[in-house]
Amino acid sequence: MTFEQILYTVDGHVATITLNRPERMNALTRILEAELRTAIEQAGRDEAVRAIVLTGAGRAFCAGMDMEELEVLPPEDIRAEQWMRPFDMNRRADYQTRYSYFPAAPKPVICAINGAAAGLGLVMALYSDFRIASDKAVFATAFAKRGLIAEHGISWMLPRIVGHAHATDLLLTSRKIDAPEALGMGLVNRVVPAERLLAEAQALASTLSAEVSPRSVRVMKRQLWEAPYQSLGEAVTLANAEMVESIRSEDFTEGVAHFIERRPARFSGR
Amino acid sequence: MTFEQILYTVDGHVATITLNRPERMNALTRILEAELRTAIEQAGRDEAVRAIVLTGAGRAFCAGMDMEELEVLPPEDIRAEQWMRPFDMNRRADYQTRYSYFPAAPKPVICAINGAAAGLGLVMALYSDFRIASDKAVFATAFAKRGLIAEHGISWMLPRIVGHAHATDLLLTSRKIDAPEALGMGLVNRVVPAERLLAEAQALASTLSAEVSPRSVRVMKRQLWEAPYQSLGEAVTLANAEMVESIRSEDFTEGVAHFIERRPARFSGR
Amino acid sequence: MTFEQILYTVDGHVATITLNRPERMNALTRILEAELRTAIEQAGRDEAVRAIVLTGAGRAFCAGMDMEELEVLPPEDIRAEQWMRPFDMNRRADYQTRYSYFPAAPKPVICAINGAAAGLGLVMALYSDFRIASDKAVFATAFAKRGLIAEHGISWMLPRIVGHAHATDLLLTSRKIDAPEALGMGLVNRVVPAERLLAEAQALASTLSAEVSPRSVRVMKRQLWEAPYQSLGEAVTLANAEMVESIRSEDFTEGVAHFIERRPARFSGR
Repeated sequence: MTFEQILYTVDGHVATITLNRPERMNALTRILEAELRTAIEQAGRDEAVRAIVLTGAGRAFCAGMDMEELEVLPPEDIRAEQWMRPFDMNRRADYQTRYSYFPAAPKPVICAINGAAAGLGLVMALYSDFRIASDKAVFATAFAKRGLIAEHGISWMLPRIVGHAHATDLLLTSRKIDAPEALGMGLVNRVVPAERLLAEAQALASTLSAEVSPRSVRVMKRQLWEAPYQSLGEAVTLANAEMVESIRSEDFTEGVAHFIERRPARFSGR
Repeated sequence: MTFEQILYTVDGHVATITLNRPERMNALTRILEAELRTAIEQAGRDEAVRAIVLTGAGRAFCAGMDMEELEVLPPEDIRAEQWMRPFDMNRRADYQTRYSYFPAAPKPVICAINGAAAGLGLVMALYSDFRIASDKAVFATAFAKRGLIAEHGISWMLPRIVGHAHATDLLLTSRKIDAPEALGMGLVNRVVPAERLLAEAQALASTLSAEVSPRSVRVMKRQLWEAPYQSLGEAVTLANAEMVESIRSEDFTEGVAHFIERRPARFSGR
Repeated sequence: MTFEQILYTVDGHVATITLNRPERMNALTRILEAELRTAIEQAGRDEAVRAIVLTGAGRAFCAGMDMEELEVLPPEDIRAEQWMRPFDMNRRADYQTRYSYFPAAPKPVICAINGAAAGLGLVMALYSDFRIASDKAVFATAFAKRGLIAEHGISWMLPRIVGHAHATDLLLTSRKIDAPEALGMGLVNRVVPAERLLAEAQALASTLSAEVSPRSVRVMKRQLWEAPYQSLGEAVTLANAEMVESIRSEDFTEGVAHFIERRPARFSGR
């Protein structure tokens, strides 16, 4: 499958998706959005792929919605397009919307933020499982400067990552923050020199592909995204059911074996 | 309107409310509480006002409930007074209680913490949207030292700002923390030299009044305080409805125009 | 009462429980688990005890489930054993499971993490009210390396302490973190030199026993663990009911008296 506005490559167990409109700071268009969704689905289905790296070409990660698209978009279209075809019928509807489907992907998404992440660019980063930032990255919610609002669930997601106070700050002031400040408030997991960004993201993807059970990663990602909807008792009940399944899995057998034999693991993901 | 125990001034788009019982460390009385509520309502209705700064006169921000009032207050009164006249009929009941009404105000509340914030003084700070602290500020929940409990929703609000572990620490030990420690655990957004506190708070208020859309700020404040009651899907549905409205607003037109024309914004707030 | 795999001592108002299988890094067995539960119950019932310190003998805090037990445990047993006899009939079922009963104890639990806390060892630490770590402590969720999943509610509890992003990092990568990194992400309250760990934990326990009202601590611990299940309005309603009770208590009378008389408090806990 070839794409027009993104790049998609698979190397070993890692799929890398690159937003590829550098001349427009990788601003989102309908085509780019559809291609990104297709690529994440493809990586999800590909048995060779165990982790997904998402990054941007050129100096920006993603400047948000392309203003040129925004100006021509009729309001009726916005309303109609929010709920798209299901991404995964087995996951809750919350994780099937236009931007919130990363949590429904069965593999971890590592966002390698190479430059500006603004508006919907930041929203995408927040729905990723990991955020590694270049020391040149900058972040802004941007909505309040355009007269817009907290779009596509960022008012729900941002407090879960940085807490209510920082979320209020970032959304209401719309101010730009640099990578160290983003790290300080927990908006990103790690900051690395720009020239090492992709290598670090891919090293993490390799860790998630080889040193831990892909089966465990898949189940735990789901547990983490279910937690906001559960009581502790429900979380324990789900964990107990998953524990019974896991103990019957190939990956558990291998997980015990490589520990006892003091050798690197060779997980099958089953 | 004149007040007895607070000061109320409006300068440009910014209303400043000063708790004004410095000889009692601005401890709360029924009069002060009623005046504060009236002032916040007044600032909310005043079309010229776009942001509210709340601070204290003298060396303390607010030492909590005035002990002299507390000793004479019959328990029946406490029970009866918790639910007061609605602050805003259009907001959920959770944001209509004796101290929890700041979230229902349609404008951001910036708490400029000039000194000690203890007990209910800390509770008020937590219901504010921003907390800027003087380097001389100190913080204490104080309840456990008096044989009291986690009052007026602080057991719900504090974990949303500093997480469960720090909330447990602050409530159970009742220990005093200084401004740097408060910053480290995310209890305040920023610490500034005492002599610059009011200027910094008013600069933030000016930013919120001029550089971003007051309409966006109003809507996003509401989205943030609704988020704890929503699923992600509900948050997205609300955001989509608000997005359609925002695209039809004057502030969106101006938000795009000032960006394209590369000039400062002139938002009407409509 | 004598124990086989733990030590239990009471000194003044402080009970200290030591996991005592140093030759197995204090890994959990059915016996150890049952003894720990009994000890926590005993400390809860003992009127002399006001705070509980939990630590490990030797160089580890707790390496998780003993692998030797795990290998022989039939899956049916796991399912059957999750819901044990109620720990406290008056607390919600969420706090009655095999590992989640610390929140139901009426006294604060201070976890003094002397070395490695891995897997279920980390889970136990998370259900404690305070976590003080030795500078030699290390932390790992460990499940993904064994092909297991996020066990016993850690997917629910961990995000409440360190936020969604750090929880994802720790669970999916299974990587080891040292004490300073744990402090930076809020996983522990404090890091102290190894030789001072127990003294610091016991000093905190003494503070919680003498400087604040044990009655307040008991009520506020409950308020904090109820908060995830409440709306703000419900939290305020509970707080108001508890406030009325507290004002009628001996500890409130003493809390006001020692303040006015400027002397150390002598709380009865009633």
